[in-house]
Amino acid sequence: MSIIDDTLAAIDADAGQALDRLFDFLRIPSVSASPAHVADCQRAAEWLVAQLVAIGFDAAIHPTDGKPMVVGTIKAARRDSPHVLFYGHYDVQPPDPLDLWRSPPFEPTLETGPDGDRIVARGASDDKGQLLTFLEACRAFQKFGGPPCAITVLFEGEEEIGSPSLPAFLADNAKRLSADVALVCDTGMWNATTPAITTALRGIVADEVILTGANRDLHSGVYGGAAVNPIHVLARILGDLHAADGAVALPGFYDGVEELPDEIRTQWEELDFDAAAFLGEVGLTTPAGERDRTPLELVWSRPTCEVNGISGGYSGEGVKTVLPAKASAKVSFRLVGKQNPDKVVQSFRAFVTARLPADVKAEFRGHAGSPAITLPIKNEALRRARRALEAEWGKPAALIGCGGSIPIVGAFKRDLNMDCLLVGFALEDDAMHSPNEKYQRTSFHKGARSWARILAALAA
Amino acid sequence: MSIIDDTLAAIDADAGQALDRLFDFLRIPSVSASPAHVADCQRAAEWLVAQLVAIGFDAAIHPTDGKPMVVGTIKAARRDSPHVLFYGHYDVQPPDPLDLWRSPPFEPTLETGPDGDRIVARGASDDKGQLLTFLEACRAFQKFGGPPCAITVLFEGEEEIGSPSLPAFLADNAKRLSADVALVCDTGMWNATTPAITTALRGIVADEVILTGANRDLHSGVYGGAAVNPIHVLARILGDLHAADGAVALPGFYDGVEELPDEIRTQWEELDFDAAAFLGEVGLTTPAGERDRTPLELVWSRPTCEVNGISGGYSGEGVKTVLPAKASAKVSFRLVGKQNPDKVVQSFRAFVTARLPADVKAEFRGHAGSPAITLPIKNEALRRARRALEAEWGKPAALIGCGGSIPIVGAFKRDLNMDCLLVGFALEDDAMHSPNEKYQRTSFHKGARSWARILAALAA
Repeated sequence: MSIIDDTLAAIDADAGQALDRLFDFLRIPSVSASPAHVADCQRAAEWLVAQLVAIGFDAAIHPTDGKPMVVGTIKAARRDSPHVLFYGHYDVQPPDPLDLWRSPPFEPTLETGPDGDRIVARGASDDKGQLLTFLEACRAFQKFGGPPCAITVLFEGEEEIGSPSLPAFLADNAKRLSADVALVCDTGMWNATTPAITTALRGIVADEVILTGANRDLHSGVYGGAAVNPIHVLARILGDLHAADGAVALPGFYDGVEELPDEIRTQWEELDFDAAAFLGEVGLTTPAGERDRTPLELVWSRPTCEVNGISGGYSGEGVKTVLPAKASAKVSFRLVGKQNPDKVVQSFRAFVTARLPADVKAEFRGHAGSPAITLPIKNEALRRARRALEAEWGKPAALIGCGGSIPIVGAFKRDLNMDCLLVGFALEDDAMHSPNEKYQRTSFHKGARSWARILAALAA
Repeated sequence: MSIIDDTLAAIDADAGQALDRLFDFLRIPSVSASPAHVADCQRAAEWLVAQLVAIGFDAAIHPTDGKPMVVGTIKAARRDSPHVLFYGHYDVQPPDPLDLWRSPPFEPTLETGPDGDRIVARGASDDKGQLLTFLEACRAFQKFGGPPCAITVLFEGEEEIGSPSLPAFLADNAKRLSADVALVCDTGMWNATTPAITTALRGIVADEVILTGANRDLHSGVYGGAAVNPIHVLARILGDLHAADGAVALPGFYDGVEELPDEIRTQWEELDFDAAAFLGEVGLTTPAGERDRTPLELVWSRPTCEVNGISGGYSGEGVKTVLPAKASAKVSFRLVGKQNPDKVVQSFRAFVTARLPADVKAEFRGHAGSPAITLPIKNEALRRARRALEAEWGKPAALIGCGGSIPIVGAFKRDLNMDCLLVGFALEDDAMHSPNEKYQRTSFHKGARSWARILAALAA
């Protein structure tokens, strides 16, 4: 047998223990958004360092102003092999609403579904399961003299909160982190049997607006009708964010938005996307958003403005006739083409400010943004990875877009001048960011095998 | 001296002991909203029965499915005197937030302020202090042969939780409770030196709407742009509830709303209301709501639609790029004139339902409503009470409106066919329902004297 065959066999033989390791990782509630989980994030980073050291990496924790970074390096089995940088994140989304989970989010379980075994836990898919596919491939190579490529791994703990510490860390460690190509495992397959490489990613920027009227909550019997209600003001402004045709109404919002290049459009048309199934899976029938666009265009190549949260006044049981002093909303924008995150936020703030009546003040809280990314599709690393995926899955890998954002991809290009290869094994129904998040056991197992093949192909 | 002069002198002479009695009453934490205070509510009811018996009433506790009712009766000193029903409530609001009280809420204290002595405790104003003004008047009459009117008193213990047991109790005891006129002491003075009779009360009805889009929360990267966002839908609907001129946009909403009668308008204009101070006290400068209406009109005689609470999606710290499955709002309407609470809710629901895009469902949760109350101002009892108040305070009693609701007033009219006389001695800064609730010692003392004069005037 060749080394790659031996390695694949080792991954197969070790599958049970790999699952145990993933369960250990999933039991750490490393929620980056919550101050209550700071120690858990630290623990997740330490867990990763221990894993890396156990499989031959030189690895350490690097403190930042936020959650720590984990960096590990390992030499290739042979000299003159290519050098890859692998990126993943150990933090997870908050698990709320807890009452919708079938089992506790940080007590991973294996459920048997019609589509095979599912690993259910917060982070199972995003990104702990995905991240471990790569480490399990490295572990298997270790039994046969080490990996075919030199590898640096970089794991961060702030991906779900916008990676605030990453830019400075990349700048300070540019040399240490530079490689021939960056590998990122935070994307999906085209479907359960078709692997994919993602070549277009939307950008994102988020903002928060807090409107304040009176200096305290008022009794609606005493003041109702005479005092301004910030919920009304906020509702009207948010209601105006979209035109009747579904387009975003912010002035200048579409500056830098381009139509799809023909070769990408052709690729996507060949995918034979089932829009009815895509929407039907979540209980919907009708595409919302801009008219005259296909659902695939809408989620892969069109920008959006979404209110992610709204709150104000009383939301407990029963009635409270309060006229609230404050109302707030969290808004985020998915960006495409050359849209500028800062300009989008400026336009949003100007839009809000221009619509404030007397006595209502707006306060804004910004969050870091990142522009959209388009990766070259005629790249040698991509060609090799595509062949490796086809060998594992028995089908050509689709070149797809992704409606989400992976800011690291832009940062790698901008700060380290590296292209990324985006290969992942998540599925559309993984419920990332939702209750009952899952990762197919097949994704986990064949994902590890896919990385083994890709590393071998890159070094061939 | 006449009997009324003797009675007033007796109230003055007994003022110290009257205050001791009020303090005893205030020490009972009869919080109706809290299951922990069931026994305290019972104790407050028993305390009232003991007081009533001590001043010559025939009085007893009447159990209900909730807190007990207290009913007491006493004959008039002379035959053929009018018969009045006096209503008050012995329950109080929860005292939270406790840390904002200067002294414990159920340890009444006398504070000296620029405006005279203040009785500080939960319930001092709402409604224990107000209720006792009437009993202290009755006590004084007892020394001179009994009150000039036959009196029935009805004290309930569930006013602060919406009086759930009251309708059935009124129905079952209609005969026992019927009288020539009902007296209610749960309203305010016009200002610290001007007594008032309230003749217009807004009604209220509340509803709750829950919009549902997808069958679960979605990732805005995966679905954003293609899946409907219920927060957007809710925002647009709530934003449309008011027209640009501040009027409520629900079809038929103003059916039954009448312009102020000239005599009331003149009355209100004479009050010389300081709108700038009213708004300025809570940090506002500009009346919201319908244009071309004075703030006093807006809060006393115009209907409103207020969103009391809104929620949907993520409202914790930081960013969560969720596209929520649900968004909800609590809405309440202050009603005037002949507006029908049920029709208002129907119109709201139709308004929402007509604006739902594909894939969004609305669920509604209604709450009991009550129509507005307008009391006849050319009523003989009111005329006599007004003269009595003027004699006590040295100023004509203002006829005022009240933006809030007192459901008992509607129930007395509907179930017992009785008009109410709303006389109270609370002041705007009494902080009812808030920390450091107080009642002016002057309100308590002159309130008792006012009731003595009113009872005498009604029997004259």
